[in-house]
Amino acid sequence: MDWLNELREEINEAINGYLTEQDPPVLYEAVRYLPAAGGKRLRPIMAILAYKAVGGLYAAATPFGAALEIIHTFTLAHDDIMDQDQQRRGMPAIHKKFGEATAILAGDTLFAKAFEIVSASRLSPKVIATLTHHIAVMSREICEGQQMDMQFEKQQDVAEKSFCKMIEKKTARLFEYACFGGAIIGGGSVSEQDALRTYGKNVGMAFQLWDDYLDIVGKDIGKPVGSDIREGKKTLVFIYAKTNAVERDWLSYYGKQDATPTELQRVLQAFTDSGALDYAIGQSHQYADIAKRALNVLPDSRAKQALLDIATFAVTRAI
Amino acid sequence: MDWLNELREEINEAINGYLTEQDPPVLYEAVRYLPAAGGKRLRPIMAILAYKAVGGLYAAATPFGAALEIIHTFTLAHDDIMDQDQQRRGMPAIHKKFGEATAILAGDTLFAKAFEIVSASRLSPKVIATLTHHIAVMSREICEGQQMDMQFEKQQDVAEKSFCKMIEKKTARLFEYACFGGAIIGGGSVSEQDALRTYGKNVGMAFQLWDDYLDIVGKDIGKPVGSDIREGKKTLVFIYAKTNAVERDWLSYYGKQDATPTELQRVLQAFTDSGALDYAIGQSHQYADIAKRALNVLPDSRAKQALLDIATFAVTRAI
Repeated sequence: MDWLNELREEINEAINGYLTEQDPPVLYEAVRYLPAAGGKRLRPIMAILAYKAVGGLYAAATPFGAALEIIHTFTLAHDDIMDQDQQRRGMPAIHKKFGEATAILAGDTLFAKAFEIVSASRLSPKVIATLTHHIAVMSREICEGQQMDMQFEKQQDVAEKSFCKMIEKKTARLFEYACFGGAIIGGGSVSEQDALRTYGKNVGMAFQLWDDYLDIVGKDIGKPVGSDIREGKKTLVFIYAKTNAVERDWLSYYGKQDATPTELQRVLQAFTDSGALDYAIGQSHQYADIAKRALNVLPDSRAKQALLDIATFAVTRAI
Repeated sequence: MDWLNELREEINEAINGYLTEQDPPVLYEAVRYLPAAGGKRLRPIMAILAYKAVGGLYAAATPFGAALEIIHTFTLAHDDIMDQDQQRRGMPAIHKKFGEATAILAGDTLFAKAFEIVSASRLSPKVIATLTHHIAVMSREICEGQQMDMQFEKQQDVAEKSFCKMIEKKTARLFEYACFGGAIIGGGSVSEQDALRTYGKNVGMAFQLWDDYLDIVGKDIGKPVGSDIREGKKTLVFIYAKTNAVERDWLSYYGKQDATPTELQRVLQAFTDSGALDYAIGQSHQYADIAKRALNVLPDSRAKQALLDIATFAVTRAI
């Protein structure tokens, strides 16, 4: 994974290089706050790997990858305001640090910046126009997914199918377009583009389901343990357990902001007993498997292997 | 002006045609709320006129114009949250109607939509890439202008030069790029593009100064009368009066949320006596004159005449 660390460094340098504006100082301090807070840079890494997996030799996918990471941080900035989350990446959320107004504006600035980066890159105008369209549609769908997510919080019941549609839009789309865009920049064939698009979407789904699982079992993912349970998030685990659990007492603790450790534990027990945790784990593995199989059309390469490893990492990682 | 009304209809139809998504329903209801609330559609009209003034014959600038109007409504949606404004276009502001979270998201969706429209238009990829870049840079500068505006509210003193830089970014840039983009789409020469860009920027400045004037003298521009005085807005009139007024008593009413009609009247008197109102009117006329003169390089046409009329309208309108 040394190679991926190198790529991550390259991406971090690119992002820093793109976010050098200084005026007004407060705005750009807020703009740099989240991108500088680190992160796995998975989306740009996957864009670059997809580019290389179809034969791309240089760094032509780096601006696009950086733009996607910047889109990602824009959505985090705004989501944290909407969800009233206090922390992000182990730090105060951007709106806690800079106030809501500047956080809204920093998100907007990052959003604009992403299009600025792609349109100023050295790609052909045709590829720029295509990528611009994809990023725009993707961003709109991310908004749709976030709106669905917020509405689900207020609903008693959410169908599994609706939940999956929501995470597909809110999370998986960005992974999908990262890989799709990388394949386009690399000049991949239509079947290679399709394969990488399918790979990206399914890895995205796998990642999100595993992320929800990690939150439930209390791993540190940069936010307080059990936060999804306290907030009553309609995760796949919850949806399955609500339908299938024999005992029902745990339901009154779900969505209880000040739930005690014992109550959190009781919910966790119900999730285990009902088979909900196993179900969600199984689903995330299934998505990862679909992702891996999609790559069969690609010739073997170091990039392809790294993408396969990422699909495995998505559903085995502990952080 | 029948022609401009026709153009406005054409633009309204285009905007409606672009905003037809339905799911999630609440999000798209919020997305359509502001664009459907009307407005002069000045920015798209100016884009189309600039296109025609350089010889454009068809409707090729309409998608770009619609995209700019959509960018404009996105900024209104977010600005009203930041500024905690309650009303817009004589209706409840979007965040009052749909809540802040959905208003943030509707703004983001509109922003994405603008890029989607331009990138899906029938323009050449080269023009699409150029316009995308311009829209992105412009949007980022609008954010910078809004941040400056918010900071000015908290400052005791604002230099006239800083104020002008702020409205140039927050307001004039959109007019500037509307005309510049129209000229690019119409295949105008570099000097025609420059001329229309200069025209647009200066009309934008004139419009904003006149808008501030109308607010002070109590014309109905879709928000409560005297709102800039109550909010203590650092307008050009205020900046001039603060520097030049002999009497100082009115300063304690400026920024007083619950100022009485008598107190508002006193501020107005000070603005008149100090010559501040005349100064701002003079400045707005000067910008309008620069705008008109810039058009000298263009051949005479109905579109050119309409642009000249708009520059006059900018600084004579009563609403």
